[in-house]
Amino acid sequence: MVEAALATLIEEGYAGTSARAIATRGGFNPALTFYHYGSVDQLLLAALDKSSQERLERYRGLASSAVPPHELVRAAANLFREDVEGGHVVAVTELIGASLGRPELRAELVARMRPWLELTSEAIRRHLAGSPLSALAQVAEPAAFAVVSLYLGLNVLSRLEPDLSQVEVLFELAEQLSHLVPRAAPAS
Amino acid sequence: MVEAALATLIEEGYAGTSARAIATRGGFNPALTFYHYGSVDQLLLAALDKSSQERLERYRGLASSAVPPHELVRAAANLFREDVEGGHVVAVTELIGASLGRPELRAELVARMRPWLELTSEAIRRHLAGSPLSALAQVAEPAAFAVVSLYLGLNVLSRLEPDLSQVEVLFELAEQLSHLVPRAAPAS
Repeated sequence: MVEAALATLIEEGYAGTSARAIATRGGFNPALTFYHYGSVDQLLLAALDKSSQERLERYRGLASSAVPPHELVRAAANLFREDVEGGHVVAVTELIGASLGRPELRAELVARMRPWLELTSEAIRRHLAGSPLSALAQVAEPAAFAVVSLYLGLNVLSRLEPDLSQVEVLFELAEQLSHLVPRAAPAS
Repeated sequence: MVEAALATLIEEGYAGTSARAIATRGGFNPALTFYHYGSVDQLLLAALDKSSQERLERYRGLASSAVPPHELVRAAANLFREDVEGGHVVAVTELIGASLGRPELRAELVARMRPWLELTSEAIRRHLAGSPLSALAQVAEPAAFAVVSLYLGLNVLSRLEPDLSQVEVLFELAEQLSHLVPRAAPAS
């Protein structure tokens, strides 16, 4: 059910994701959504959790690897491209858009940002400690907030304007800049 | 009419902004929206243009001033607070949210990002030329894209989570970092 809900959200958008549309895609009875999840929104949050969990694992694996900064940026760019191509970006943006008219969704979405903020601030601490940018490592939490805000903004823009060339240029720029960051002391 | 439309969008959200709601607020006949603008969406775009124009003037004034970087960041933070308090952020975010379900709105919104991108890249060129970060001035366009993405992401987050304390911490951080940027050569 969660997979049918995620696929419907990605392909039809929030406005087209009814219990009936999900059930048709998954080949089950529409009433099951309410029986198991109580509402379409709760099923969609479960679908977002599944998608987020998979993506988080990938980013977590990258963040804990000991690669030099420019490779980290390049790998992060590839993960972002996967986020776009696999539909995760659409799922996130559609639910955020829906939450504007449904305040009860907002707190749920804000709570789901927490693991991303933690992962990002952990990655900043780890990769910048011992580098000339170690001042940033000491303010890892607001810096992570900035990174997650930027990620959300890029999500929204990639939804408004599917031509991602600007995002590509941005990642190239980040990669160039990352060459300026001397490698941190190897993790012990 | 444009003012009534903007106020309705800010206070009721896109979902609550009908021709009737706008007309009730403005004290005119609901048919006038269609007579003058053709649709509620076109009237709302005109309202966004009015709000954007005012904000753009303020940011443009700041960008062309010759203040040191840390004062620039502090002044930009104050402008962003005004964007939030005056409702501009709500208007932008509501229309972006609405555009998810109305693809015809997307191109209109993307086109309206252009003056913001130009202003930002101009400001980056002007303020970083001659500083140790002049490498960034040479890639002002993607850097401006990043800044505008970040701004959009902060807009969305400030709508999801009205407690702006993280944004405040972010601006404090930016101000601290800006002290590290030696002042560019005075504009001649």
